[in-house]
Amino acid sequence: MKRTHAWVESANSAETHFPLNNLPYGVYSREGSAPHCCTAIGDQVLDLARLEDAGLISAGPEPVFSQDSINDFMALGADVWNAVRNRLTDLLREGGDPALRNDDGLRAAALVDIDDVVMHMPFRVAEYTDFYSGRQHAENVGTMFRGKENALPPNWLHIPIGYNGRASTVVVSGTDIHRPLGQMKPPDSDNPVFGPCRRLDIELEMGAVVGLPNAMGQPVTVDEADAMIFGYVLLNDWSARDIQAWEYQPLGPFQSKVFATSISPWVVTKVALEPYRVATQAREKQLLPYLTENGPLLYDIELEVLMQPQGARQATSIAATNYRNMYYSAAQQLAHHAIGGCRMNTGDLLGSGTISGPEKSGFGSLLEITWGGKEPLMLEGGQTRTFIEDGDTLTLTGYAQGEDHRIGFGACRGTILPSPKFS
Amino acid sequence: MKRTHAWVESANSAETHFPLNNLPYGVYSREGSAPHCCTAIGDQVLDLARLEDAGLISAGPEPVFSQDSINDFMALGADVWNAVRNRLTDLLREGGDPALRNDDGLRAAALVDIDDVVMHMPFRVAEYTDFYSGRQHAENVGTMFRGKENALPPNWLHIPIGYNGRASTVVVSGTDIHRPLGQMKPPDSDNPVFGPCRRLDIELEMGAVVGLPNAMGQPVTVDEADAMIFGYVLLNDWSARDIQAWEYQPLGPFQSKVFATSISPWVVTKVALEPYRVATQAREKQLLPYLTENGPLLYDIELEVLMQPQGARQATSIAATNYRNMYYSAAQQLAHHAIGGCRMNTGDLLGSGTISGPEKSGFGSLLEITWGGKEPLMLEGGQTRTFIEDGDTLTLTGYAQGEDHRIGFGACRGTILPSPKFS
Repeated sequence: MKRTHAWVESANSAETHFPLNNLPYGVYSREGSAPHCCTAIGDQVLDLARLEDAGLISAGPEPVFSQDSINDFMALGADVWNAVRNRLTDLLREGGDPALRNDDGLRAAALVDIDDVVMHMPFRVAEYTDFYSGRQHAENVGTMFRGKENALPPNWLHIPIGYNGRASTVVVSGTDIHRPLGQMKPPDSDNPVFGPCRRLDIELEMGAVVGLPNAMGQPVTVDEADAMIFGYVLLNDWSARDIQAWEYQPLGPFQSKVFATSISPWVVTKVALEPYRVATQAREKQLLPYLTENGPLLYDIELEVLMQPQGARQATSIAATNYRNMYYSAAQQLAHHAIGGCRMNTGDLLGSGTISGPEKSGFGSLLEITWGGKEPLMLEGGQTRTFIEDGDTLTLTGYAQGEDHRIGFGACRGTILPSPKFS
Repeated sequence: MKRTHAWVESANSAETHFPLNNLPYGVYSREGSAPHCCTAIGDQVLDLARLEDAGLISAGPEPVFSQDSINDFMALGADVWNAVRNRLTDLLREGGDPALRNDDGLRAAALVDIDDVVMHMPFRVAEYTDFYSGRQHAENVGTMFRGKENALPPNWLHIPIGYNGRASTVVVSGTDIHRPLGQMKPPDSDNPVFGPCRRLDIELEMGAVVGLPNAMGQPVTVDEADAMIFGYVLLNDWSARDIQAWEYQPLGPFQSKVFATSISPWVVTKVALEPYRVATQAREKQLLPYLTENGPLLYDIELEVLMQPQGARQATSIAATNYRNMYYSAAQQLAHHAIGGCRMNTGDLLGSGTISGPEKSGFGSLLEITWGGKEPLMLEGGQTRTFIEDGDTLTLTGYAQGEDHRIGFGACRGTILPSPKFS
């Protein structure tokens, strides 16, 4: 897949995350103005409400881009998604419709330097479900928690295992996160204690964003599930490992996960990722027909995690892996979720599960990288880490690599602040 | 506590769930009119939007009762809750303000026979969290799933164990439920199968409705948590036991619960239940200070479950128990939920966990009543049941018993329809 040449010159570099082939959706504001829906093009944010207002784009009889989320746009369906994308491509490509390019006033109002804006949550999260579909991660964590013999639960090769997460604390990249307080049981203590989490971690994930709903009680096939997905984000499923170890039996992770989940400000659309489709890995056990894919539904997306202590001059790359390592696709996860009659809504977010590659350099959490804290990580500048310390900034990045361009997600970043005081 | 005498005569009976002391909140409609907020008084529904419109009650500068949920009203806070309650009491009590009683037109428009209305979801469920705070239930289920030795997980006496549930499928009493499809592993099979759930069950619970939010990252004490609660509903946490048994390790119940949760149409306010406060049972292990109660925060509410097969002439009472059997109060659950920094929102729903009494006659699920299907239940008319069959109607009811009146929740009812076709 070759790059489509844009008249916004910064969109034509080989390194930008936002060439014309991407056109992700987000929500931005700048000083003194209300949040609007936007796309990214090179180093610019393009205000879609301004284009809509000027009559250059339309998603339907009612304006949708002056809102502070893309939910109403997503709910309009794939024909509208495609029509708007095609229209934006025509307005931005070299030699396309000159209506925006030639309108100095509109251009000045609608194109804003990406460094001059504040990015907001791109969509209202209806509900958040987190899966556990990375095999290497499941085996790593299972080995640490239950021993090598019982590492992979018996259901794992048959079910995209998942659990309901907490939507109210999904935040956009750049939001600081307080270290959570909670209950944990130190190994040397008979009784649990209450206090700040001591084993704070990340989980490198992708999130699928549901664009279209199903009805309660209405089964959904894998193909139908794929058609319901609008796009993808980077997702950091912050995790308190000591709280998790003490609470998770028998009903799963709860307080260890509900304090925060960070996502990238950009939702990269399924259609932009289409050229990077890859098949899931060979099945070790045959799947039941309701989970069988008719074609490649996973994506080749390179992912990296960076860690930077407060005051450190540079960040250290601590993991590099690829979304294609997942055992189950988001479409399989969504089909499994909906088939029992669960109503899915516009704005539902599905976390992939931690994406760990087969090598240690590709492990997607500190729990795995430092093997439960036993093998400290050396950072640039000489500091070491087992888990996250106050002031550390963690950044996820990712992109699909085309022939001469990248389809990128930008960054998903968060800095850990000390726990709130509580007595 | 004595009954306050109302001029709506049906509100003065000893058996009604809705004496003037109750004044629960709901949302109703009748043919040809939009849903409005309402309360119940005896055998009548009282349209609060009509009273608001007539200037007889006010919750603030903006009208809130013409909406199709009580969320905006709940968000106004306890002073408003109390002021509206006091005003309604004055308008409805014998000898109170005659403004409604003496206005024939308004009375005819605002008071509607409860049998002539359709009840809707009383509030928009922001998110739903389900707890596991009944000790008898945890021990019963633990014994069946893990053996008597490991029945109660080591954390259970220290933490109100809970997990995130699914808000999109919380439905109001009277909504039919399709038997869910799902993946399960029969004991005689090496591989899982896909199909209709064969071990469909109820869980008798109470639900606490959060009226007031906290900020993300802001710890909450038990007393503050109690103050955030607006009221309570009956809750049936429908459960697919065969799907649950196969999926629940290691991340907890998911598809076995997401297909449906039913609640009563009436939210009974915390202030109406105040006279029925009781303390939780003696602690077997001392709780950490953040979970310690300063006073009685549980309630004495008598609960019953009825089962009626399709075509059966009468329902059979299959369980009778009391909410006071819970080991943790909703305030403790909410404090535990929020203390780690989880933002709670107006409209959050917290399920108590299954309320099983100490005797078999008080067990709150068929799993326990029939001990995993081994001891079938005999119904009136001669039918037997292990789990729910298509066409069965399950009804929860409950009330607090006062000296000469009851503070009731009405009924929480659901009928099971066959699974949808899927091939």
